[in-house]
Amino acid sequence: MKCSFLRGITVAAAAILVSVGSLAGAQGNAPAAPPTPSSTGAPSGKADPLPSWNRGASRDAITAFVKRVTTRGGKDFVPLPERIAVFDNDGTLWAEQPMYFQLAFALDRVKALAPQHPEWKAQEPFKSVLAGDLKGVLAGGERALMEIIASTHAGITTEEFEGVVKAWLASAKHPKSGLFYTQMVYQPMLELLGYLRANGFKTFIVSGGGVEFMRGFAEKAYGIPPEQVIGSTGKLKFELREGKAVLLKLPEIQFVDDKAGKPAAIQAQIGRRPIAAFGNSDGDLEMLQWTASGPGPHFSLYVHHTDAEREWAYDRASSIGKLDKGLDAATAGGWTVVSMKDDWKRIFPSPR
Amino acid sequence: MKCSFLRGITVAAAAILVSVGSLAGAQGNAPAAPPTPSSTGAPSGKADPLPSWNRGASRDAITAFVKRVTTRGGKDFVPLPERIAVFDNDGTLWAEQPMYFQLAFALDRVKALAPQHPEWKAQEPFKSVLAGDLKGVLAGGERALMEIIASTHAGITTEEFEGVVKAWLASAKHPKSGLFYTQMVYQPMLELLGYLRANGFKTFIVSGGGVEFMRGFAEKAYGIPPEQVIGSTGKLKFELREGKAVLLKLPEIQFVDDKAGKPAAIQAQIGRRPIAAFGNSDGDLEMLQWTASGPGPHFSLYVHHTDAEREWAYDRASSIGKLDKGLDAATAGGWTVVSMKDDWKRIFPSPR
Repeated sequence: MKCSFLRGITVAAAAILVSVGSLAGAQGNAPAAPPTPSSTGAPSGKADPLPSWNRGASRDAITAFVKRVTTRGGKDFVPLPERIAVFDNDGTLWAEQPMYFQLAFALDRVKALAPQHPEWKAQEPFKSVLAGDLKGVLAGGERALMEIIASTHAGITTEEFEGVVKAWLASAKHPKSGLFYTQMVYQPMLELLGYLRANGFKTFIVSGGGVEFMRGFAEKAYGIPPEQVIGSTGKLKFELREGKAVLLKLPEIQFVDDKAGKPAAIQAQIGRRPIAAFGNSDGDLEMLQWTASGPGPHFSLYVHHTDAEREWAYDRASSIGKLDKGLDAATAGGWTVVSMKDDWKRIFPSPR
Repeated sequence: MKCSFLRGITVAAAAILVSVGSLAGAQGNAPAAPPTPSSTGAPSGKADPLPSWNRGASRDAITAFVKRVTTRGGKDFVPLPERIAVFDNDGTLWAEQPMYFQLAFALDRVKALAPQHPEWKAQEPFKSVLAGDLKGVLAGGERALMEIIASTHAGITTEEFEGVVKAWLASAKHPKSGLFYTQMVYQPMLELLGYLRANGFKTFIVSGGGVEFMRGFAEKAYGIPPEQVIGSTGKLKFELREGKAVLLKLPEIQFVDDKAGKPAAIQAQIGRRPIAAFGNSDGDLEMLQWTASGPGPHFSLYVHHTDAEREWAYDRASSIGKLDKGLDAATAGGWTVVSMKDDWKRIFPSPR
């Protein structure tokens, strides 16, 4: 049973959610309470569309780019249908420490499903998950993590899974901040999404996360509808059950939307080269390069996690959200690198 | 060289474009010149949104459904974001006889590339293609067709391929009608697309055809932007060429968007169950079933090719656009079946 359930899972599965050692390498810094909202710094007489962004080079680069591509008659004017902006999710639109939130979901789901699987009490990696022993889970390596993904993300219909994700998001809290996970979206990025849309951009998520997991909150949290969420996908099996069509989630990977998979997915699903791309890790590098290689005006931006007080500080050495080659490429390419500590007045939407 | 070029092509490749025997089984009926546009039959005082549709059960079913889901306060009202309509392309939005137009493109492209491949003069299936001997091509079976697809749809970047497709569409003519292929879209379906969009629907193509081929005309011909075109895809390779990112088309299949692949692609890329679906063949059956199994109001429609005079007449026995199980399912499910002969005043947009 266990073996057939896992048949077909490839090594790539792990790339969706986890890097081995991520839990062991988790930083201990919890996000502190966000500061009281400060003055927006808006120019008099006009509402500031980016009130949580400090004045400075990053903010100026964003607004200058938007002005360039929206100025009718200007040499860099971009027609509406071509104003495509793509955003990574984990670490770019919401936090990703001490582990990808989707992995927290998977671990919680093991616990929720345990009563239906009495054998798990004696069977790794489930035994360790149920005992709260993350080091024990990790001792099983990639295979253990893949087994967890398979047992928590498959075997039910797509619509059942949507319900499970939404119920989890409505109840689970982040272990350090005590916030709901959807409260750990970045306020400055919410403003940026709205600012771009107000300027005619169509905003997409292009993330290594599971597409059906992200759709559980993307519309409500970001205003991004399901058809503009691109992510990693599992294989689906069409079935007629008493004459009604359902799609059953299989424990096999269809596509891993990470690294070079990101521009490939953008091409397959959007079919236009974006003119603006936003990421935070080396997994976003190819997407930012693809965007930066466009023939017209373009904008590539990295969010750099520099704020150990209000969020977390990590980059080149992190096992989650590693930003190493990307930092070098950003410097070489003149891309914008946002320092969360310096450029953002606040991190999360609401004070606790 | 030949073998490495073909490595990784799966049997599924053939499903994208062709069914073996399609050329041999091609019907001889050419589309006749469309009739002079007749009276629109519009209700007095209001422009008819479907002037090429005859009054009758098919037209009434369409307009009644749209009225139901757009009547605010009605029990079947559907909010705007959920008004998703999906359309097959070949045989549903444009013609598909005597062979899928994308196959005509592939054969023409063999001829265009021949000067760069002197060896093709002595090498099947290219030798037969170049001699105009379609029976000789077919004698090579699926393998021959896959070799043609691989040699004509890969080995160049996505942007180069877009240019090739557009140049072909601007010059090639249909062998029987003498029309440009994009003139062989169905006028009543153009009106239907516009009518649905005017009623708040978001219209998608979901077709077995190659996604990059269809995007070469979908926006101009149908008003459907690239990000709303879902099709079969090939694998792409990300490359940096002198610092510029390109995507190289590989001769390997990523996903075949046909039969049960259609609802799976809809789930992966749209993420909502459509409320209206339009097809013409058994390849669309699962998409129509998926739509018809939705919890709310829904509409499934088959275009039935019944007009041997103005277009072609084919269904259960055809090797292209076979409609057999689908007809039975439509009867059983009470779906709308459009008779092109009886329900449509005209087939193509412009009289010759």
